[in-house]
Amino acid sequence: MPAKQFANLNEFAAIIEAFPSSDQSAEAGAKARNDVLTKPPGALGKLEDLAIWYAGWRGQAAPTLGNPQVIVFAGNHGVTAQGVSAFPAEVTAQMVYNFEAGGAAINQLCKAFGANMSVHAIDLDTPTADFTTAAAMSEVDVIAAMKIGWDSVDPAADLLVCGEMGIGNTTSAAAIACALYGGSGRDWVGRGTGVDDKGVNRKASVVDRGVILHKAAETPLETLRCLGGRELAAIVGAIARARIESIPVILDGFICSAAAAVLEKTAAGALDHCVAGHVSAEQAHKRLLDHLGKEPLLSLGLRLGEGSGAALAIGVLKGAVACHSGMATFAEAGVSDG
Amino acid sequence: MPAKQFANLNEFAAIIEAFPSSDQSAEAGAKARNDVLTKPPGALGKLEDLAIWYAGWRGQAAPTLGNPQVIVFAGNHGVTAQGVSAFPAEVTAQMVYNFEAGGAAINQLCKAFGANMSVHAIDLDTPTADFTTAAAMSEVDVIAAMKIGWDSVDPAADLLVCGEMGIGNTTSAAAIACALYGGSGRDWVGRGTGVDDKGVNRKASVVDRGVILHKAAETPLETLRCLGGRELAAIVGAIARARIESIPVILDGFICSAAAAVLEKTAAGALDHCVAGHVSAEQAHKRLLDHLGKEPLLSLGLRLGEGSGAALAIGVLKGAVACHSGMATFAEAGVSDG
Repeated sequence: MPAKQFANLNEFAAIIEAFPSSDQSAEAGAKARNDVLTKPPGALGKLEDLAIWYAGWRGQAAPTLGNPQVIVFAGNHGVTAQGVSAFPAEVTAQMVYNFEAGGAAINQLCKAFGANMSVHAIDLDTPTADFTTAAAMSEVDVIAAMKIGWDSVDPAADLLVCGEMGIGNTTSAAAIACALYGGSGRDWVGRGTGVDDKGVNRKASVVDRGVILHKAAETPLETLRCLGGRELAAIVGAIARARIESIPVILDGFICSAAAAVLEKTAAGALDHCVAGHVSAEQAHKRLLDHLGKEPLLSLGLRLGEGSGAALAIGVLKGAVACHSGMATFAEAGVSDG
Repeated sequence: MPAKQFANLNEFAAIIEAFPSSDQSAEAGAKARNDVLTKPPGALGKLEDLAIWYAGWRGQAAPTLGNPQVIVFAGNHGVTAQGVSAFPAEVTAQMVYNFEAGGAAINQLCKAFGANMSVHAIDLDTPTADFTTAAAMSEVDVIAAMKIGWDSVDPAADLLVCGEMGIGNTTSAAAIACALYGGSGRDWVGRGTGVDDKGVNRKASVVDRGVILHKAAETPLETLRCLGGRELAAIVGAIARARIESIPVILDGFICSAAAAVLEKTAAGALDHCVAGHVSAEQAHKRLLDHLGKEPLLSLGLRLGEGSGAALAIGVLKGAVACHSGMATFAEAGVSDG
């Protein structure tokens, strides 16, 4: 069955509002299985919750995890004109070449965890508009980017990680988070790839100006259009498609989480098929995860993006699923259950 | 060169005191390499420190990690007579069969992370003495168990994880930690495989009595002999051998860490080739890691033992090494470095 498509933001919102639920029967089966595996009750901690969650979304009481997909989206941001990044905008395209040549961190992590990786550079020669002066994207633009994300998901994948690359995109993500959850720019900006204190202040002011300029945005998807970027829109499209295809998602860092928040703000529960792979060193990520009600699997001080933290968490989820589906039961192993 | 052997605890202490250091030249080479990889400085967080640490101990500026070894040691404990566990002592042997049949959590994690796994059941029919009434082991016994650990390390491995199984061994580990670091039994005991509040109180009292009875133990290795178990002694032997063979180690949970503490207390720095894979749900593990000065890589509420938390952390270390040794440099990739 081909996944339903969308021609505008209202149609996309309707898809989100009609998102399918987890398979309760598979989840119940996974819980029952977990109770009889050869370990003291609860001894695998969060791995047990993870495996049961994964089983529910895959619709199998004893699922496998063998085909993870990592998609890296790249976009350029007009707001870089405001001096919000430690790196020049050219680096977005340079890093796309690096992804394609296999030289970036995310390439190595995908190899290490057996993930299929693809890269989508979205209109790098046409940055979004500077959101301090205009809406970042037209509706046509944001829908086009969302469709790229939507179409890039492999229905045969059994796990999705969305990564991003886009000089200036922590500022865009901070603006989205600020618009969705309130507070001031100061609450939501951080050092990104490494700006100094002055740069952080500049980012905070840019976010404040953007949020005020676009305060009339009436829906989270409108906020995405006005303050976001093409790679963020693509992430929104991909996470939504994954839900339709029963593919669980590991969220990456601050930028991925800000994009994901657009879905959750559109309809509560829209991220129930997602776990937070890690909490990054970007200072507002923790705050954002708290708003999303997501506890991160890892906390290793990463702040790279590309999907790197989520890719690393593939290992944790693989371990959880391997234990759940591969372990013997007390009866099978002839072990006394206490 | 065959590794030097030992006939008694004094000879073993001498080996610890003469432990080789990390390769400073390889570590410097790794630092220099890390500085020019295609990422903002520090953006891979703890992965960068991990890779540099691993490079130093492997003696290669750009090492690989392809042959991890997981060894599970099992032993039985006379102190179970004091009612310190939620499971009967028979479960130790039953779980050894489960390990050998491939049905335990650690089997699945080893498969998931490509680790070679072996199991050593050490004299299960002869539990150690109940340490509330006598020394757990004679010097001959403890040396024999340490040699099993020492001999079980594969010199061709490039990473070691030591797991354990032994009904009653959180009590033994708590007693060792209490003897080495002070405090009372209450500070060091926890629920283990799942005892209730009464059981925790009983464990605390057992630890207090054991520590008082054996307070004359003059060295950490003597403490191991009086309060430990065969699987803990084997872990001590294996971690020491790994140091001699330039094999970095990921420490597992409370029991593994208590055994490891015997080495660190014998000679400060004796665990410099080790990282803490995780902090477990056993309440005193955090306290013990603080004493060891080790920050855990993972915190997922595991409390299973078997090496499970450390095995899961193999994925993190593999990711760190893969990024470090596989990423392109700014020059190679033609990326502007800020």
